[in-house]
Amino acid sequence: MSWLSIPSDSHFSIANIPFGIISTSSNTSPRPAIAIGDHVLDLQAFAKGDGFSGSSDIQKHVDVFSQSSLNAFAALGRPVHRAVRNYLRDVLAKDTKHPDVLKDNQKLQESALFKRSEVKNHIPLTIGDYTDFYAGKNHAYNVGCLFRGPDNALQPNYTHLPVAYHGRASSVVVSGTQIRRPWGQILRPGNKVPDLAPCERLDIELEMGMFITRENGMGSPVPVDEAEDYIFGYVLMNDWSARDIQAWDAWVVLADALDSAKAAGIKNDNDLLPYLKEKKQNNVLDIDLEVDIITAAGNKTTLTKTNSQNLLWSWPQMIAHHTITGCNLRPGDLFGSGTISGTESGTEGSMLEQTKGGKVPIQLSEGEERKFIKDGDTLVIRGSYGSGDSKVGFGEVSGTILEPLPLFK
Amino acid sequence: MSWLSIPSDSHFSIANIPFGIISTSSNTSPRPAIAIGDHVLDLQAFAKGDGFSGSSDIQKHVDVFSQSSLNAFAALGRPVHRAVRNYLRDVLAKDTKHPDVLKDNQKLQESALFKRSEVKNHIPLTIGDYTDFYAGKNHAYNVGCLFRGPDNALQPNYTHLPVAYHGRASSVVVSGTQIRRPWGQILRPGNKVPDLAPCERLDIELEMGMFITRENGMGSPVPVDEAEDYIFGYVLMNDWSARDIQAWDAWVVLADALDSAKAAGIKNDNDLLPYLKEKKQNNVLDIDLEVDIITAAGNKTTLTKTNSQNLLWSWPQMIAHHTITGCNLRPGDLFGSGTISGTESGTEGSMLEQTKGGKVPIQLSEGEERKFIKDGDTLVIRGSYGSGDSKVGFGEVSGTILEPLPLFK
Repeated sequence: MSWLSIPSDSHFSIANIPFGIISTSSNTSPRPAIAIGDHVLDLQAFAKGDGFSGSSDIQKHVDVFSQSSLNAFAALGRPVHRAVRNYLRDVLAKDTKHPDVLKDNQKLQESALFKRSEVKNHIPLTIGDYTDFYAGKNHAYNVGCLFRGPDNALQPNYTHLPVAYHGRASSVVVSGTQIRRPWGQILRPGNKVPDLAPCERLDIELEMGMFITRENGMGSPVPVDEAEDYIFGYVLMNDWSARDIQAWDAWVVLADALDSAKAAGIKNDNDLLPYLKEKKQNNVLDIDLEVDIITAAGNKTTLTKTNSQNLLWSWPQMIAHHTITGCNLRPGDLFGSGTISGTESGTEGSMLEQTKGGKVPIQLSEGEERKFIKDGDTLVIRGSYGSGDSKVGFGEVSGTILEPLPLFK
Repeated sequence: MSWLSIPSDSHFSIANIPFGIISTSSNTSPRPAIAIGDHVLDLQAFAKGDGFSGSSDIQKHVDVFSQSSLNAFAALGRPVHRAVRNYLRDVLAKDTKHPDVLKDNQKLQESALFKRSEVKNHIPLTIGDYTDFYAGKNHAYNVGCLFRGPDNALQPNYTHLPVAYHGRASSVVVSGTQIRRPWGQILRPGNKVPDLAPCERLDIELEMGMFITRENGMGSPVPVDEAEDYIFGYVLMNDWSARDIQAWDAWVVLADALDSAKAAGIKNDNDLLPYLKEKKQNNVLDIDLEVDIITAAGNKTTLTKTNSQNLLWSWPQMIAHHTITGCNLRPGDLFGSGTISGTESGTEGSMLEQTKGGKVPIQLSEGEERKFIKDGDTLVIRGSYGSGDSKVGFGEVSGTILEPLPLFK
């Protein structure tokens, strides 16, 4: 389908066209790009080389491709994202209507096309605020059982509104960032006063993330059926638990690329308040998700296989609820879904759940086992929809845990 | 002390020199300024008119005064803030060493000096993250009593670490912004399902705010005795409760201007962990604080008189705790102190406390009374240290509550 060679089952098929911020050894300034198969198309170089000359609608916005983040592109809104994505899909297609632009333009290929392995990824959007929801009902139930028993596992409000907590924008890092084990106060059983120690129950939380694309004014709630217009795109996210650091993959899959990847979420038996009722049914994303652990010894084990259908709330419902109080969102704001767990063993999105609260070790390959994450462990999250030449995937989020820093050396 | 006429007891004496961002009718671009008495000195115009020619140390940084926020100035660090403040104090002093710069320079006075009543204030710093602490121990105790009774009023960790929650940067607005009463889900007594209604217990929370001036790296805790270097300055803050919107006065009082305004906070009987132990004793700010309510009918009543000594933790302790887990701070990050209440009647920083949980109405002037804030009420917070020609004050934070917007008209 493309004149570029794209491996079958690539996450970055021509059906995807995810956006990110890259730099290269020859040009260290971060700039927008798309991923396509094993390549990356540098949109700043592409625009400079008249790549968008085939579309006067896009041509007037090309300044956004000289920015060091995708915020300005996001703020242009979904109709522009759609036009850019469709144009780039055409330019990359075998039967492109614009062969002169890139397919037959060796010079522009040389200046704008890079191997993906040769580029460095940067944080794609400057995040204003980061809200982490808790929409994974099975996860909330599992964790609730550990702390309060099965009868009171879910708080009474849980099925009436999308519960969320607010996280730090500064703590969000890109895939590949090495993570120092954090220090913290710990109150040990039997003790009256806490001591200071490195976090002993460091965990992974498998989540999806969503970036906001447009502003609603302070005091202006977003109707749930208009909320899709506020979605820029999606990422995979690892909410490193001890809840201090979030890492996510560096390619943002546009909302349009997953328009058909929708399914029923977890059924909610409540008669919801009108502002949370969607006309669209089955509006939860359908993404297959996996988590691998690779120990310091190099042993790799798949910890979890699940699907993002295990959410009680859709992204439009989260947006509608977030803004019903009048709260203002801005382009670049990040929402997390909350940890995504299935109902069966091997589908849990955190080690806390898999180990029944740190009691039952997880058996890894080569006889290793884990209750929580050890220094030197690498955790990898993958996610995708579909298969073959039209697979839409996220690449992966990967992070290695380093030993804690000594305090005040 | 100044060749400019400054009213006695002005919050903006020559001992203060607070920084803000202003615009004027003749130049609508937001730009840095200082407040001095009833005037404002436009630092962009002042720099352009060679105002900083008397200091080569400052001259090399004047680009920061052409920015639309104070972040770049903040990021220069406290030694530069000190140099700029001292230089401006000299330029404004009767016996200035640089009379040619402004005192005898009618042309520069005309282009750079404005009446304070003629300028518009803007948000002074772009806020990366906003953390709201809960360091007002009397407030925490009063609220704890309402919800859990006096025996369990404070959570066990309360005196061991500065408790905080994370707030939205997007929701922070400047003094004078009119505030729409928010909508929200409310579960009424006896009901099983919530309904959607305008917030019925809208409250004020009297707080102080602090802006961060420099970055610590992710994973690098800040030692408590070095934490003062991370403070840019202070503001008064109204954390409108229903916890959706924060407003603060538009002038940031530099840390240096309050270096001597320190006192003992609330005594903590714990043997604190070493990372929270300060060498400096009595390191809590000593600011007299007042809250007025002005009803729609125009009746004004002082609700509260208290002092910021009613905090259990100092700002350096909050910084040390915030970073002990490895959390990174950035210039422009905002910390809130938490609601500040004294121990006696009439010193509470919220109406929730004054009304014993909404049970006992507060008597206002002209026979009006309030349990919580009504539409049309204006709340004003003031704060200052010292008196006469060396008073250092914050001006005021003022906000009026508007009726809720109709939903999805």
